[in-house]
Amino acid sequence: MLSFENDYSEGAHPLILKRLSETNLEQMSGYGTDPICESARSKIRDACGTPLADVFFLTGGTQANRTVIASMLKPFEGVISAETGHIGVHEAGAVENSGHKVITLSSENGKLKPERVSSYLKAFFSDANHEHMAFPGMVYISFPTELGTLYSKAELTALNGICREFGLPLFIDGARLGYGLMSRECDVTLPELASLCDVLYIGGTKVGALLGEAVVFPKGDAPAHFMTMVKQNGALLAKGRLLGIQFDTLFTDGLYFKIARNAIDMAEELKAMLIRKNITFYLQSPTNQQFVILEDSFLEELRKYVVFSFWEKYDETHSVIRLATSWATQTECIEALDKLL
Amino acid sequence: MLSFENDYSEGAHPLILKRLSETNLEQMSGYGTDPICESARSKIRDACGTPLADVFFLTGGTQANRTVIASMLKPFEGVISAETGHIGVHEAGAVENSGHKVITLSSENGKLKPERVSSYLKAFFSDANHEHMAFPGMVYISFPTELGTLYSKAELTALNGICREFGLPLFIDGARLGYGLMSRECDVTLPELASLCDVLYIGGTKVGALLGEAVVFPKGDAPAHFMTMVKQNGALLAKGRLLGIQFDTLFTDGLYFKIARNAIDMAEELKAMLIRKNITFYLQSPTNQQFVILEDSFLEELRKYVVFSFWEKYDETHSVIRLATSWATQTECIEALDKLL
Amino acid sequence: MLSFENDYSEGAHPLILKRLSETNLEQMSGYGTDPICESARSKIRDACGTPLADVFFLTGGTQANRTVIASMLKPFEGVISAETGHIGVHEAGAVENSGHKVITLSSENGKLKPERVSSYLKAFFSDANHEHMAFPGMVYISFPTELGTLYSKAELTALNGICREFGLPLFIDGARLGYGLMSRECDVTLPELASLCDVLYIGGTKVGALLGEAVVFPKGDAPAHFMTMVKQNGALLAKGRLLGIQFDTLFTDGLYFKIARNAIDMAEELKAMLIRKNITFYLQSPTNQQFVILEDSFLEELRKYVVFSFWEKYDETHSVIRLATSWATQTECIEALDKLL
Amino acid sequence: MLSFENDYSEGAHPLILKRLSETNLEQMSGYGTDPICESARSKIRDACGTPLADVFFLTGGTQANRTVIASMLKPFEGVISAETGHIGVHEAGAVENSGHKVITLSSENGKLKPERVSSYLKAFFSDANHEHMAFPGMVYISFPTELGTLYSKAELTALNGICREFGLPLFIDGARLGYGLMSRECDVTLPELASLCDVLYIGGTKVGALLGEAVVFPKGDAPAHFMTMVKQNGALLAKGRLLGIQFDTLFTDGLYFKIARNAIDMAEELKAMLIRKNITFYLQSPTNQQFVILEDSFLEELRKYVVFSFWEKYDETHSVIRLATSWATQTECIEALDKLL
Repeated sequence: MLSFENDYSEGAHPLILKRLSETNLEQMSGYGTDPICESARSKIRDACGTPLADVFFLTGGTQANRTVIASMLKPFEGVISAETGHIGVHEAGAVENSGHKVITLSSENGKLKPERVSSYLKAFFSDANHEHMAFPGMVYISFPTELGTLYSKAELTALNGICREFGLPLFIDGARLGYGLMSRECDVTLPELASLCDVLYIGGTKVGALLGEAVVFPKGDAPAHFMTMVKQNGALLAKGRLLGIQFDTLFTDGLYFKIARNAIDMAEELKAMLIRKNITFYLQSPTNQQFVILEDSFLEELRKYVVFSFWEKYDETHSVIRLATSWATQTECIEALDKLL
Repeated sequence: MLSFENDYSEGAHPLILKRLSETNLEQMSGYGTDPICESARSKIRDACGTPLADVFFLTGGTQANRTVIASMLKPFEGVISAETGHIGVHEAGAVENSGHKVITLSSENGKLKPERVSSYLKAFFSDANHEHMAFPGMVYISFPTELGTLYSKAELTALNGICREFGLPLFIDGARLGYGLMSRECDVTLPELASLCDVLYIGGTKVGALLGEAVVFPKGDAPAHFMTMVKQNGALLAKGRLLGIQFDTLFTDGLYFKIARNAIDMAEELKAMLIRKNITFYLQSPTNQQFVILEDSFLEELRKYVVFSFWEKYDETHSVIRLATSWATQTECIEALDKLL
Repeated sequence: MLSFENDYSEGAHPLILKRLSETNLEQMSGYGTDPICESARSKIRDACGTPLADVFFLTGGTQANRTVIASMLKPFEGVISAETGHIGVHEAGAVENSGHKVITLSSENGKLKPERVSSYLKAFFSDANHEHMAFPGMVYISFPTELGTLYSKAELTALNGICREFGLPLFIDGARLGYGLMSRECDVTLPELASLCDVLYIGGTKVGALLGEAVVFPKGDAPAHFMTMVKQNGALLAKGRLLGIQFDTLFTDGLYFKIARNAIDMAEELKAMLIRKNITFYLQSPTNQQFVILEDSFLEELRKYVVFSFWEKYDETHSVIRLATSWATQTECIEALDKLL
Repeated sequence: MLSFENDYSEGAHPLILKRLSETNLEQMSGYGTDPICESARSKIRDACGTPLADVFFLTGGTQANRTVIASMLKPFEGVISAETGHIGVHEAGAVENSGHKVITLSSENGKLKPERVSSYLKAFFSDANHEHMAFPGMVYISFPTELGTLYSKAELTALNGICREFGLPLFIDGARLGYGLMSRECDVTLPELASLCDVLYIGGTKVGALLGEAVVFPKGDAPAHFMTMVKQNGALLAKGRLLGIQFDTLFTDGLYFKIARNAIDMAEELKAMLIRKNITFYLQSPTNQQFVILEDSFLEELRKYVVFSFWEKYDETHSVIRLATSWATQTECIEALDKLL
């Protein structure tokens, strides 16, 4: 059975497992205070070009989003997100459960347009009744987005400018950050990204780790006692080493970027193959998630040999499916799919 | 200065003040356990035709919404609302603050269309990933809506049917209930309304009381210890009598309906007058809130003599404004406006 | 039937009702923006000797506590309270519902001892694991306490000093503030009280108003958009005038203090009479709540003629009851009780 | 450097790492739907003797507690806990952050006495004002407790009976469950424990796993959509296999119990050695955490060679410290400590 279901179907990059084994019986202090966590934080600071950054390791993406947002908003503030943003759709209402509204704005191909954010903010603050409404307190974007698309440097700069103008922090959800940065269409570097936002997280779960996300406050201005927020939200591992070892390995010799590039290379092979077969794309994605439109009868047949994600109905007889490559995808998989199709 | 700003610009109906004075020095037990509260509850049960109903008096609309919703949803559930619904727009994120998502659906003239609710629910439960999403746990509608429009009996019956099908309670926000029921286009009675929902509240603040809303569970199936929820949400008055006296007065000899009808009569006079003047309506409202489109330069002039609510920009040179009548509006006010225009 | 049940058994001071009637048909803007609210705020600033103070009117005590606390704490902070504090006992978990721990410390006669607070805070911050614990973020006291007792100026100064040392705000719950200030043992004035805390509320409900509490930030440093917090917590009345009129009346010509003094005078008469009858006091209270220990068989008899509050079992055959006087209590009531006993 | 700091200083049992490596490149479906998770669930059901049990894997203890409690309480309910209970002390206010009060009762050596629970519940429900208070909605105990002590079968049966009487669920926090069950003084089996509670969790983090706790609803009556609650609380791993593999390994051939017994054997050796040295115990603990009282000057010296947990000051010149053994402790460690002392 071939699988293009998602980018978290395998375990971890083998170097991570090796490192876990090598250090297994060393006694280390808990909760992220061990030397390997410290080393990982240092390497992430280097990779971001932010020597003063605060770095925290959390166990998952929903938790990273929830904890960051809850720690930075006042009770009457909400977070602006694209209507397709992960926090508003696939996190089971975690942000609302922490007391905050997800203010969803219309978006294009998963992206929050700077003009849309700007016009919303202007309208909000000029509304005579805005004191009766949930205030916008943060802007949240995903890089890449849930639809595999990317913000350009110009767009990020524009969003950053709007956030500065209105005094709002900009938060980048980087659950698939590596796949974004390694995209052939990406025109921004990790240090640039870090300089254009107030907080971001570097996704591990979907880029070769067993679990874990690294939350980075580039300017070193994490909310006071952020670790207590991490604890309160259940994201603090007693064996913090598990996250430290993984990120330390991923950020040694550029492993994170190398394995992310593999997913991109495989995605490009996949795209080329699908184009050769005249398959219709739902949208143009420059990252590891590809969305194509296929006939339902054909999909029923395909399902016998390939695992993929159903995305949504396209029309009466067609559906959109997602095919994802990952750090672990091999050329052979693409070739096998080629034959099958 | 003429005012059509809203329906809560005056104090209370004089009979309420009279009753407050008459009973002022009587010693009564607190928290709604006094005999006048009991009498008021009994009269509301009669008016609703629901002898078994549970009735609670809360201090305001945001609180009634927040308390009812929080008491009936599980932590992972949200409440479905029109995108213009009061809970999603003008309650400062109170529902989200209590932990629940407001699931906003597109709407027409302030109304949630039954088909839209039905298609949303079908799509939700057939989504393979719905366990990762906030569940719909309740349907919220306003009667009349925030735009002054009304659901027909057929629409309410359809919404009720959908709620039954999916096992969701239907909650009617009746902040302006009287004005809805007394509308010349209303084809539903209070007992019918009560029979078509699981919980509703009868608005006092906007229909002649100083403050207060009566939450009614028509079937007598209020969530266990709902009073403790009321207390927790700060809506339980030590001097519960203040609410009991007002509702007892409003539901004696049909006062609530009589004074609501006045607002409707005045609104109809207002409409007729505006039509005579060829003023453009933003939408057709059969209740006490009228929305008209006027030129900005004209509005600037008008503002010197009349208080009204700015609603939204219509185009470059026009705006939508709201003119509201109330239980206290008099023919003289309409005539004065007539002259002014 | 005589009643000493509590201090909210009657309606409002007659001057309040008179003022409500006089202004009833004046059209005023909503949500506390009317001129009478402004006048009331100004008079409260004068009474507190704090010309820069921010003043807000909320509908009740639980709500005032909940809203103030939620607006001033970070998500990982709790509020320190005496174990008998109202927020930890009789507010249905409202503070916890807003996400914050009530950190209860042992207390004496309802009072939080400065040394106890200080030793707790020192222990907390020197605990190596304190980052895993809810942080103390505020100190809450009641003046007078739930047991009718009073903090001395020296104690308040000490608590204030501790709060300064640890960077915590001091919040005074003044649900019965008038009865505290008018006590013959009170050695602090309202301006002194205001200068010794960061936020306090002046209780209306229990001191002659129908409802309402005035939250005062003496230094004018209310949390940004506090009004939105008030709205979110359901404490913002559309007809804000109802609260403004009451507090404006209470703070005109010292009415608040005059009627509070009546309760104290009556409590002193009550005490003198009880002492004459050799009745045992549960504790010495210098305010309007008196706690006495009586035999259960006697109480059963008494209950036929007098309404009082059962407080707690004292031993097998005795109970503690509370007798409360109020702004409305008259000498005749004490005399009648005298005869009965 | 010797370490008796805690039971999570090492990585995982080597068999777990081996299994992670063996399965690493197998593609599996996410979120706990893979066959290894299913196998682990089945083995846990067998070990508990509860063929109908619902089993969920969460990432950590704070999260397990928070998620279970939030899913089972109504908004106005709190959870009863010993004053030393983990949820009330070392979880950064997570339970309160989810909206619920931790109702702490006085306890002995970390244990909640059945009589104390019973008298509290009787007093609560007979209090005329209990509708104004946070309701008790669940009883939480730790097995073993935070102080290493154990409930006897008789005590558990009594607590279970009280919970039945008052309709409350009993929740057992088993962060160190293995160490409790393998204690030489334990008189209860895992199936008995499962039959005496409504929900428990089997701790992995502290008993040989890298992370993870298995929440078990023995009767198969998990709250509806508990998985969505797990997601909302950020405890659902995309790579659910990571937890499944660990618990499947731990519950194969009784590994969980074997390695837990090692900790107990080592603790008994440690105790015997400490007794020989006439060291004073703070309390009698039959599990892997031992608490002893030592002179501060001696501790300062000891700290140079041994890592341990400071617990609390005992008197001016002495402190209580905790020495913990674990699944990974070896006889050589005890001998080395013996020599050092």
